[in-house]
Amino acid sequence: MSQVEERLRQAGLVLPEPPAPVAVYVPGLTAQGLAYTAGQLPLVRGELAGNGKVGEGPGLVPPAEASRLASLCALNAIAALKAVLGDLDRVRQVLKVVGFVASDPAFTSQPIVLNGASEVFGTAFGDAGRHARSAVGVAVLPLDAPVEVEVTVAHD
Amino acid sequence: MSQVEERLRQAGLVLPEPPAPVAVYVPGLTAQGLAYTAGQLPLVRGELAGNGKVGEGPGLVPPAEASRLASLCALNAIAALKAVLGDLDRVRQVLKVVGFVASDPAFTSQPIVLNGASEVFGTAFGDAGRHARSAVGVAVLPLDAPVEVEVTVAHD
Amino acid sequence: MSQVEERLRQAGLVLPEPPAPVAVYVPGLTAQGLAYTAGQLPLVRGELAGNGKVGEGPGLVPPAEASRLASLCALNAIAALKAVLGDLDRVRQVLKVVGFVASDPAFTSQPIVLNGASEVFGTAFGDAGRHARSAVGVAVLPLDAPVEVEVTVAHD
Repeated sequence: MSQVEERLRQAGLVLPEPPAPVAVYVPGLTAQGLAYTAGQLPLVRGELAGNGKVGEGPGLVPPAEASRLASLCALNAIAALKAVLGDLDRVRQVLKVVGFVASDPAFTSQPIVLNGASEVFGTAFGDAGRHARSAVGVAVLPLDAPVEVEVTVAHD
Repeated sequence: MSQVEERLRQAGLVLPEPPAPVAVYVPGLTAQGLAYTAGQLPLVRGELAGNGKVGEGPGLVPPAEASRLASLCALNAIAALKAVLGDLDRVRQVLKVVGFVASDPAFTSQPIVLNGASEVFGTAFGDAGRHARSAVGVAVLPLDAPVEVEVTVAHD
Repeated sequence: MSQVEERLRQAGLVLPEPPAPVAVYVPGLTAQGLAYTAGQLPLVRGELAGNGKVGEGPGLVPPAEASRLASLCALNAIAALKAVLGDLDRVRQVLKVVGFVASDPAFTSQPIVLNGASEVFGTAFGDAGRHARSAVGVAVLPLDAPVEVEVTVAHD
């Protein structure tokens, strides 16, 4: 077991199976020492763990729940990296995380939602898990997911 | 003619002229063996091939039509790569495709729209055309385009 | 003072302090000769210089004002690059700029807004400031910012 997976285990986090390849696109790829993942949804065993738009009010996904869903996106991204790299200890630095939050137009705390993903990268990779991040509020995401997260890492 | 262009030709796809540079930004750039394209709209000879928001219902761009427009975005991206690299056979691997779909809030099949672009990359580059992808539904795109696609590739 | 900062100064532009690190994410990172910034908001000394959605009409941020805000995002991105690289003259080429514009659904001139950012990169880096760019209209941005800009550069 890689040190990365051991750190996740100690935090009570279980790495899922890598998401299955879909048509001509794949969960992740590497070249020139950089690995890129596909945008990851909060899928658990192939099912969305929640859906809808994030915000405060009836019928919306509350920010705290959206943050939990963002952490699931991050776990799926790490699973995609494992599928690409074989050994997660090859990750030298998480570089960039882009997080899309399907947002009610009045909701402006996308960074709080994305902290759920950032913290998982920190837990998994320690100092190498620090990253530049963009948080964006979008109209709607595939399958009506509340959050989508993609990541770029440098590796040995 | 590059093998890439020959494969496109056999699929009945014609590579357009590369999009013209606009102000201080350019259609594509390369460094460290990675080439990046600008976000590509479904322009044909400088005119949008369609406009509006994608979804099911009156006044919306149907998903199948949006998928066709996404394939035009991909062709423009390949034309931008040709402008940058000279020879498309220098592409070693398509790494990352990000696709933005201007979406009616109820429309959640952005991946189906983007398959139109992914398939063109597969046709053009074969195994090297497999890629990680993020599909996002956004409020509105430049010129009221229904789709925008950007790509990052590794090259010799 | 780097040549980059001297060019900004001659254009009357003052480089701000780099944005402070927030939690596990940081303003920028570098690996393999590529530096990535976090998505930058139009913050001036920690306060948003404007907020709301961009468009034409009452209650909206006019495009010319949004373009000015985009130039502030670009200055913050350059400050983040300085924090990462130490010396801005190490930037060999700006590669990719992605700009998100919080947009009224009827507003389709996101490229005009983003020109405000592109011009600052041109002013700062000259030919090395030319870049591929994606402009996207989104529902809402963190803190209700009208614009967010991220950049990837190649460096020595």
